[in-house]
Amino acid sequence: MSAPITFLTDFGLQDDFVGVCHGVIARIAPEARVIDLTHGIAPQAVLQGALVLRNTLPYLPEGVHLAVVDPGVGGDRRAVAVRSRDGRVFVGPDNGLLLLAADGPGVESAHELADRRFRLPEVSRTFHARDVFAPAAAHVARGVAVEELGPAVDPEDLVRVELPEPEIGRAQIGALVLAVDRFGNVATNAAGAHVEQLGLETGERVEVRLALDRYYAVVAKTFADAPRGELILYEDSYGMLTLAISEGDAARLTGLRPGDRLRIARE
Amino acid sequence: MSAPITFLTDFGLQDDFVGVCHGVIARIAPEARVIDLTHGIAPQAVLQGALVLRNTLPYLPEGVHLAVVDPGVGGDRRAVAVRSRDGRVFVGPDNGLLLLAADGPGVESAHELADRRFRLPEVSRTFHARDVFAPAAAHVARGVAVEELGPAVDPEDLVRVELPEPEIGRAQIGALVLAVDRFGNVATNAAGAHVEQLGLETGERVEVRLALDRYYAVVAKTFADAPRGELILYEDSYGMLTLAISEGDAARLTGLRPGDRLRIARE
Amino acid sequence: MSAPITFLTDFGLQDDFVGVCHGVIARIAPEARVIDLTHGIAPQAVLQGALVLRNTLPYLPEGVHLAVVDPGVGGDRRAVAVRSRDGRVFVGPDNGLLLLAADGPGVESAHELADRRFRLPEVSRTFHARDVFAPAAAHVARGVAVEELGPAVDPEDLVRVELPEPEIGRAQIGALVLAVDRFGNVATNAAGAHVEQLGLETGERVEVRLALDRYYAVVAKTFADAPRGELILYEDSYGMLTLAISEGDAARLTGLRPGDRLRIARE
Repeated sequence: MSAPITFLTDFGLQDDFVGVCHGVIARIAPEARVIDLTHGIAPQAVLQGALVLRNTLPYLPEGVHLAVVDPGVGGDRRAVAVRSRDGRVFVGPDNGLLLLAADGPGVESAHELADRRFRLPEVSRTFHARDVFAPAAAHVARGVAVEELGPAVDPEDLVRVELPEPEIGRAQIGALVLAVDRFGNVATNAAGAHVEQLGLETGERVEVRLALDRYYAVVAKTFADAPRGELILYEDSYGMLTLAISEGDAARLTGLRPGDRLRIARE
Repeated sequence: MSAPITFLTDFGLQDDFVGVCHGVIARIAPEARVIDLTHGIAPQAVLQGALVLRNTLPYLPEGVHLAVVDPGVGGDRRAVAVRSRDGRVFVGPDNGLLLLAADGPGVESAHELADRRFRLPEVSRTFHARDVFAPAAAHVARGVAVEELGPAVDPEDLVRVELPEPEIGRAQIGALVLAVDRFGNVATNAAGAHVEQLGLETGERVEVRLALDRYYAVVAKTFADAPRGELILYEDSYGMLTLAISEGDAARLTGLRPGDRLRIARE
Repeated sequence: MSAPITFLTDFGLQDDFVGVCHGVIARIAPEARVIDLTHGIAPQAVLQGALVLRNTLPYLPEGVHLAVVDPGVGGDRRAVAVRSRDGRVFVGPDNGLLLLAADGPGVESAHELADRRFRLPEVSRTFHARDVFAPAAAHVARGVAVEELGPAVDPEDLVRVELPEPEIGRAQIGALVLAVDRFGNVATNAAGAHVEQLGLETGERVEVRLALDRYYAVVAKTFADAPRGELILYEDSYGMLTLAISEGDAARLTGLRPGDRLRIARE
């Protein structure tokens, strides 16, 4: 019996990168169930990958969480397996991708992926997902202890990324766009509670200021709270304050993209 | 032993929506095989989703058919499980998505997804696929009876969508584009039999009139019936009358998109 | 116990083509694990599909390798199952797609997919993946011998595609672009060894001449060998000489696409 493996990357599905990692896992752990969490992380967007892994973790079975967004592949960044206090094991590059999620339950121990028994016989310089990370994840799924993978790393020494904090004023919120989804919903680093701190309630209108434009949105709980086509501001299902259009595409209307700033104020 | 679950949505694969539903299912029904039917339904295109589910149903294993195209999420549309006379169970929003397929074998019973035991502990206002539908599908796959999920709904009260009928004249067919696939093949609401009713046989030429343009196509059984680059009209593998170009892209040539109208007439 | 099935096509994931084949397989071989190798082969790009299958084969579990890139569907190209000397079975159209991979270990035998017991009851003219290839793969995964599928085909008579060879001069390499991946890395038909034959070592600069433009690139082992934003030339993880930009997109910069030619010379 193998533990399930979840798998997140920035590889997309156009190429064979994801499929070949599935192949490698199936050769080592034929029984392991592999769940593709997403392979749609923007290329080399470590912070976005870290955020998705953190947000979705409570919904994933306990097991091995393989994640690879790895602009430093072939350089001197470490390859690690991180065990959290609730028994999950995170496998990937030590560039901050894993820690936003693993720091939730708390890191129990971390080990470098150094032992050659748990890599492919030949390790390329540019595709460690296939040659290092997927094999390690598969071996752990089959029961290999994290300690066997290589030397211990002090959990304090692991690389962490910081999520930028929103600016919360008395009359306005300064927020950063973290993600835009397929429906054009624009998620920010603010939370629903911040809107409540401004004294705003469902149904009230707010002003949303971008660099050059200004929009009005309705504070909402769900899409059905506003007429079709109207801009709404709501807390999404992961707790992120999000701009959307009921049956429409807010990102297309506003042109907002990850990294953009916006200000939300009472009308 | 769990029943297999097929899974259709308009979520795309860029985000984590599909993956997190797989995670939820794996936590509840670790043994269930989940088959991604497609997640490429156009955003909020309920009719397209209903059509794909109906067309593909005979090729899917009997089990649970989870389908979510849900523009009304968070509003007052019902969440339902529908059992068909052949023992399949359809799970999704009561907006017509499920019924085109379920009405094939016939609906035996329908129940609202109301019982909290078969939802996640916290239900968001905007992501019922994760919080309501996937858990219900997983529980049914493990053997929970549809009756346990919540109060019965009269099958006659379920929402149905209607497929628009083609206009069949003595000399021409008026058809509506229902789908354009990755190869640029343009499927309509007409069937191969309609072409035969016009007295047209394989190898004959027809005129295809769009709003502004006019094309000629060869009536064909398969791509090999026409020279490379030529427009053909054939019945696709789901029985839909389809415009295509052998080794080419008919949608790009004609600009046709779902919802567009065309007329097919003897040359 | 079923053998694993790997699955490669040019179907994309927007439509239901891939999902319905999974459904067909699950009906015949409910226990078989299906690994989606990729469905992102460019439409009808048989050579690209053949190359991906050959490159990834060593990383895939031994089993059934279902591959469908099939511009000749419905015409007179054969449908075949090919057993290689190492016990793998390749299933797909006889158009060269399978042989680049199968010729590696060597072809032991080949059979036409003719026996109706191992097809769907009705075979369409345009979707043999669903009606012919997926059922055959599923039956073989369950233990049906290749010989049972239909009459033997002389392995010498199978269609083969040829990979174009690079031109290797004393001072320059003439190469052809074979693939561009999601990161904009441009893989050619040359190998890393060819660069060494020019007497070039890691860290040296080369000139890359396209039809109209000229670029300079650094010979590298991995992305970390060059400053961010710089063009590098390296052997990718499948042994293909590849042009890339560290944390950038070489295809976007150069406009290179599959089929384009470039010349690589000492600076």
